[in-house]
Amino acid sequence: MIQDIVLIGAGQVAHHLGQRLRQCGLHIVQVYSRSRPRADELAGLLGTIATADLEAIVPTADCYLLAVRDDAIAEVAAALVAVLPELALLAHTSGATPATILPPYFRNAGVFYPLQTFSRQRSVDFSQVPICCFAREATATEALMALARRISSSVHHIDDEARARLHVAAVFVNNFTNYLYQVGYQLLREEGLPFDLLRPLILETAAKVQDQAPVAVQTGPAARSDHSTEARHLRQLEAYPAWAELYRLLSDGIRRAQERKG
Amino acid sequence: MIQDIVLIGAGQVAHHLGQRLRQCGLHIVQVYSRSRPRADELAGLLGTIATADLEAIVPTADCYLLAVRDDAIAEVAAALVAVLPELALLAHTSGATPATILPPYFRNAGVFYPLQTFSRQRSVDFSQVPICCFAREATATEALMALARRISSSVHHIDDEARARLHVAAVFVNNFTNYLYQVGYQLLREEGLPFDLLRPLILETAAKVQDQAPVAVQTGPAARSDHSTEARHLRQLEAYPAWAELYRLLSDGIRRAQERKG
Repeated sequence: MIQDIVLIGAGQVAHHLGQRLRQCGLHIVQVYSRSRPRADELAGLLGTIATADLEAIVPTADCYLLAVRDDAIAEVAAALVAVLPELALLAHTSGATPATILPPYFRNAGVFYPLQTFSRQRSVDFSQVPICCFAREATATEALMALARRISSSVHHIDDEARARLHVAAVFVNNFTNYLYQVGYQLLREEGLPFDLLRPLILETAAKVQDQAPVAVQTGPAARSDHSTEARHLRQLEAYPAWAELYRLLSDGIRRAQERKG
Repeated sequence: MIQDIVLIGAGQVAHHLGQRLRQCGLHIVQVYSRSRPRADELAGLLGTIATADLEAIVPTADCYLLAVRDDAIAEVAAALVAVLPELALLAHTSGATPATILPPYFRNAGVFYPLQTFSRQRSVDFSQVPICCFAREATATEALMALARRISSSVHHIDDEARARLHVAAVFVNNFTNYLYQVGYQLLREEGLPFDLLRPLILETAAKVQDQAPVAVQTGPAARSDHSTEARHLRQLEAYPAWAELYRLLSDGIRRAQERKG
């Protein structure tokens, strides 16, 4: 059973994951970050030791969680070949990155991907965060899944191909949705209206699909083929050609989905 | 002060609004719907009388809330000219419809628009629902706003022009956002993955902007100009040209917003 964990990285994922692991009785034996102050800060929070020197990483931990920026994973993992034994259980935490990016040297390499958006100011109910596990070897997969079950009730075995698909879907419901919030924000601001007008609607829209399929709760002018309202909206958007184009594309999508459903 | 209210319409808005008004001590004296069973059902819930006959609407109420489909407002309001006195306080509840659609006969005509998405299965915390009020006459506006303050802590004076803008913004953050949830749902389903994987992310994305501006919490490949991830995502979307187009347009929007911010 995994008990001693080294956290490699000190960003948002490392912060939230580290605190949850500790809360659930796991032992963070070390935090690495190439930024010494950030390593110190997180190690302080987790009551453990910090290092900014990859070669000082202890080689005897049960698990190494690699929570660095996507574009740094390959480089850091390659450097770890000189530091860790080949049977070390090493997993990156990225949704966008295949396990194959980790050196073949690590026979137990894998992925431990918590599917949530983490930010400094907000705490998240980690017990509900889906954790997507995958490893080259079945025993390593099992070890990662057992670890995941200690910190979350939502644990999934997801291979590289499925995770790539999942990551695109996450971009749609998270990054792109947030951009639609931005459009709403700006449309209101230019009319001198407060964004607070839209906040309850945003929250309820997300709450509605927690127990229903999105297609079942789709409403609006496109869903009911209300062309006169659509025409009025497009006139409102005349000064914003990119948003008018977005309006048309999204309305077309809604119409097609309703036709398939109907 | 408004005390006796007639509800015209028996859809979702009439259901939620009627129950909230009653809960806050207002008296629903009558429910009208052209569908007698629906009028009966809502009247039963509200402990009041039902009618499916416009001419049977009592002419002495303090306020008439017209919560029918957008495309029925003009017709029903025109028919009410023969039934109600010209000083009757008549307000429709539509965000998409100007007050000018109500007959000039009604000197106290206006709008009482609760900005939320209502569904049969879900109760909503109405005390947080923004209510947008507007009327031709200042005294009517004041009466509607005073009524709104009895059922919500978020009451706003919003004229036709501002409300038209607000309604487009609401379509972006509600209808279009829900469509992005649909895209996520379908991308997952075709890979055999459960939508539950995305539900916590959807909720947290909405929760994040409750106390921050969307642009401040924007993340993702487009926000950090991560072109290699974008290229991988677009390959994932090769079989879905409309979604690939949406991906490009939304990513462009995010990039432009980040440039303006930066």
